[in-house]
Amino acid sequence: MFANAFGHFDPTGRTFRIEDPRTPMPWVNVICNGRYGLVVSQNGGGFSWLDNSQLNVLTRWEMDLVRDDRGKFLYVSDLNSGHVWSLSPAPCRTPFDVYRCEHTLGATTFTTEHAGIRATWTLTVAAEDPVEIWIVALTDLTGRARRLRIGSFFEWCCGVAPDAKREFHRLFFTTRHDAARRAIIVTKNMWDVPARNEKEHWNRPWPYAAAHAVAGVRFERDLAIADKALFLGRYTDPAVPAAMMGEAPACAGFGRFGDAAAALGGDLTLGPGQTVRLHYLLTCAPDEAQAAALLDRYTDAAGAAEAVRGAGRAWDDRLSATRVKTDRDDFDLLNNHWLPYQAISGRLWGRTGYYQQSGAYGYRDQLQDSQIWLPLDPAQCRRQILLHAAHQFADGSVYHWWHPLTETGLRTACSDDYLWLPYVLVNYLKETDDLAVLNEVVPFVDDAGGATLLEHCRRAFARAAARMSPRGLPLIGSCDWNDGLSALGVEGRGESVWLAFFLAGLLADFARVLETSGAGAAAETFLARRERLVEAVDAHAWDGEWFRCATRDDGRWIGTRENTEG
Amino acid sequence: MFANAFGHFDPTGRTFRIEDPRTPMPWVNVICNGRYGLVVSQNGGGFSWLDNSQLNVLTRWEMDLVRDDRGKFLYVSDLNSGHVWSLSPAPCRTPFDVYRCEHTLGATTFTTEHAGIRATWTLTVAAEDPVEIWIVALTDLTGRARRLRIGSFFEWCCGVAPDAKREFHRLFFTTRHDAARRAIIVTKNMWDVPARNEKEHWNRPWPYAAAHAVAGVRFERDLAIADKALFLGRYTDPAVPAAMMGEAPACAGFGRFGDAAAALGGDLTLGPGQTVRLHYLLTCAPDEAQAAALLDRYTDAAGAAEAVRGAGRAWDDRLSATRVKTDRDDFDLLNNHWLPYQAISGRLWGRTGYYQQSGAYGYRDQLQDSQIWLPLDPAQCRRQILLHAAHQFADGSVYHWWHPLTETGLRTACSDDYLWLPYVLVNYLKETDDLAVLNEVVPFVDDAGGATLLEHCRRAFARAAARMSPRGLPLIGSCDWNDGLSALGVEGRGESVWLAFFLAGLLADFARVLETSGAGAAAETFLARRERLVEAVDAHAWDGEWFRCATRDDGRWIGTRENTEG
Repeated sequence: MFANAFGHFDPTGRTFRIEDPRTPMPWVNVICNGRYGLVVSQNGGGFSWLDNSQLNVLTRWEMDLVRDDRGKFLYVSDLNSGHVWSLSPAPCRTPFDVYRCEHTLGATTFTTEHAGIRATWTLTVAAEDPVEIWIVALTDLTGRARRLRIGSFFEWCCGVAPDAKREFHRLFFTTRHDAARRAIIVTKNMWDVPARNEKEHWNRPWPYAAAHAVAGVRFERDLAIADKALFLGRYTDPAVPAAMMGEAPACAGFGRFGDAAAALGGDLTLGPGQTVRLHYLLTCAPDEAQAAALLDRYTDAAGAAEAVRGAGRAWDDRLSATRVKTDRDDFDLLNNHWLPYQAISGRLWGRTGYYQQSGAYGYRDQLQDSQIWLPLDPAQCRRQILLHAAHQFADGSVYHWWHPLTETGLRTACSDDYLWLPYVLVNYLKETDDLAVLNEVVPFVDDAGGATLLEHCRRAFARAAARMSPRGLPLIGSCDWNDGLSALGVEGRGESVWLAFFLAGLLADFARVLETSGAGAAAETFLARRERLVEAVDAHAWDGEWFRCATRDDGRWIGTRENTEG
Repeated sequence: MFANAFGHFDPTGRTFRIEDPRTPMPWVNVICNGRYGLVVSQNGGGFSWLDNSQLNVLTRWEMDLVRDDRGKFLYVSDLNSGHVWSLSPAPCRTPFDVYRCEHTLGATTFTTEHAGIRATWTLTVAAEDPVEIWIVALTDLTGRARRLRIGSFFEWCCGVAPDAKREFHRLFFTTRHDAARRAIIVTKNMWDVPARNEKEHWNRPWPYAAAHAVAGVRFERDLAIADKALFLGRYTDPAVPAAMMGEAPACAGFGRFGDAAAALGGDLTLGPGQTVRLHYLLTCAPDEAQAAALLDRYTDAAGAAEAVRGAGRAWDDRLSATRVKTDRDDFDLLNNHWLPYQAISGRLWGRTGYYQQSGAYGYRDQLQDSQIWLPLDPAQCRRQILLHAAHQFADGSVYHWWHPLTETGLRTACSDDYLWLPYVLVNYLKETDDLAVLNEVVPFVDDAGGATLLEHCRRAFARAAARMSPRGLPLIGSCDWNDGLSALGVEGRGESVWLAFFLAGLLADFARVLETSGAGAAAETFLARRERLVEAVDAHAWDGEWFRCATRDDGRWIGTRENTEG
């Protein structure tokens, strides 16, 4: 279903299978469990993070949608022939005999055949822990014994992405080899995040430890390298890493002042037709002991495999509360699986795509998106409403966006941001009748005492009322919902007709909320405001003509202009 | 001279010649004429800028000293064999038969032989204009006619580097083909620089136009491509660009919403043993007309060649005012050429290296560095002193660093920044006796009326006097000159013994300035302050023991501790 030149959905609708990696843009899976996340493209490009996909990125990546050759990779080399390839198209651009990339709910799997080796590589995030798990299987297809080396490779970022002052940041990493756990542990004595206030110095330690480990197999010789130049070689082709050939250093590059990276693996012999299974882990925790404890939880092969299944089950459970069934299978397929999955994993939790690595909460964005929960788990939408209410200022204004972890943000100059709080609240109430939420007391950014959610919404409306033009239309401020009109009305003159429409609908809806919650007088005021607004729109924002739309016989839309009498 | 495994200085001392590109780190030339600059490594990696090497970068680069494979490149392909190589080691990692990279004053030249073609590629910046010039010559060494294609390639940045929100920024470029000038013109409707104040919106146009042109040769078929994916191909190896082989599009990828890049060149036939010469230009100006006028000035081959010679002459003239002659040739060589050249071109003008792409003026850094002018052209040091004085606040504090172009900066919390103004002034006066400079009236950042330079210095000393510990030692603040001690004394308790030493010397020196300029009473006060400071150092910062240093017979230093009586 939805087949195109590059791939198609499988019949269950849970999985999009890409069979030709030359997609017009990177086609990615954003896999997040609410805290830990990763993005991976059909090429294998991408990155990982904890809690904020811009401010706390674990692995280096470069936003380059033409090359898409930066990420976390698995290399394999044939120690007899010296040939090196990768288990995804990047970075080796291997001409696979068989290639398949399956983006499914909570996991991506690469299946490849090359040089007589069938490989599968599944990437997932544990449902309940900040742990990324890769399950790998290599099978000989030649019927001959094979001497292989496998090596993971990525560069540590451990903080804000992109790593702008990279050579400076490089100085603050410490890498350590945990031989017992077959792990590389990294800490960083610098976290260059925006300061919350003048007293906060930019120079503070990264308050985490990250770890990468390999498990599930005994190598004839282990490879553990924590320095980029030692693994890749200097000025060489990353498709042919120095350490994947010849006598690679077994354990090298740890300590300080290298170029912090992680490469783990080793040499093994694969009997004729034999399969070897192993897995990798990547995690991040407040300190080394907690990171080590997380590794220990998934070091067992059966446990790791179960975690992959658990991640898929968690998504099925999450999305199964409401199922859509119409006479169009394709509509059902998207609405039952991929669309809500993307909205939750990518937009609400990851807050990143492959082109907008944000990590921040947009005041409009995540409030709007949280409505995906209404048919699934309305308590999650309620949680989001209260979180956003806590990012309103006492004067009714809000952050256009703010960053979790640092709680820094950009106070909005847009006309509409703050109105999405009552908008989404109204929709939540329509679904749930949970009027008790109106009495939840929530702080303001600049007033820890806060007020009820109802009062938060009234302040939003009061702010809108204070931002009207002499003609009675809302001022647009720097922009309205169309923020392509950026910086349009910063001098306080331009009007927004869109916002007038939005506000007119919202005033009516919220009048009902007020009425239902016993504030009948206030409801009257809201309705009167709405009347005046509608009159202003009719007077100043409409030329008196209708535009009538109809479908022609051939199915195309046509429009005709008519005057009010017509 | 100074020969090592990778290269050596030539006998004139003006040129460092690298003969093996596998240097332990990129070895670069920072070529700047005071406004326009470029950095180029022995691999060919690097970038270009105008006026600010961080905020107004013309071409994309990635700070990756292990790979060093991002920059502005020249590709050549043999249209008969389909073989593609580059005229520097990056990005093709060509196994050259002959390789030489000569970093000289104001220019870098690559000389290579590969696939039967001898190539020279010289990069320079015009002495008087914001124009980067590449002179290229290709010679057949096989004695057979050759069908070649040559193509330049780089990605536009046009603003702040690194281009953090790259896929967003991508939307704001417009590229245009100026066929008459054989040029690619680029403008950008976004410049994401720090705002100076709350009213300044982050969304403003990049106030420049940039242009890349090819000249000096007629191609059989022109190649002009303004889109990265069209030139390189998607997900392909940048060592083998799609457009360097087969029937490349002649003119493609212009307009909006591509991935703005520049590739210019074309196809030519080289007779047996024949040489073809051509040149490329890169420039940036306030608008398209001015950019075009700059191209026109250098489109003539003789003019371009003369510009290369002129750039070298300008450096020789600049550095020839004082020549060092000692009994050590190596000492003379460095002090007559490379050290002052680096200090001026890299530190004062470019304000970038290959690892600290700054563009900002450091309050200490560029003041200290400006002393390089004292034996060469003291008026330049005077200019720097006055520029820095204008970045002092009325309370005597200064910016730790500030950005030209935006005039935004970080107000210092260090103990010492502001004291470098009198320090360098004293050294300037020692060389010049130019006491008139003391009466120059210079604004403060927060007081346009300003004050004399003498008063600026007195406010610096007054600020130092106000920041003393109860024991009479200077407070260290966030750090002193050792800013590795970053954030050490932000709570206003720690002391800096280093600053006590520095201030003691400075008070004495400045007392002489005051005395000479007729402020005898103030001079007395300064000397009295110095006395108290020296007493405090003796009392609290010295354990009463000497540390005596001597040279042993084998030439190594030894130290012995002695008490004051010893």
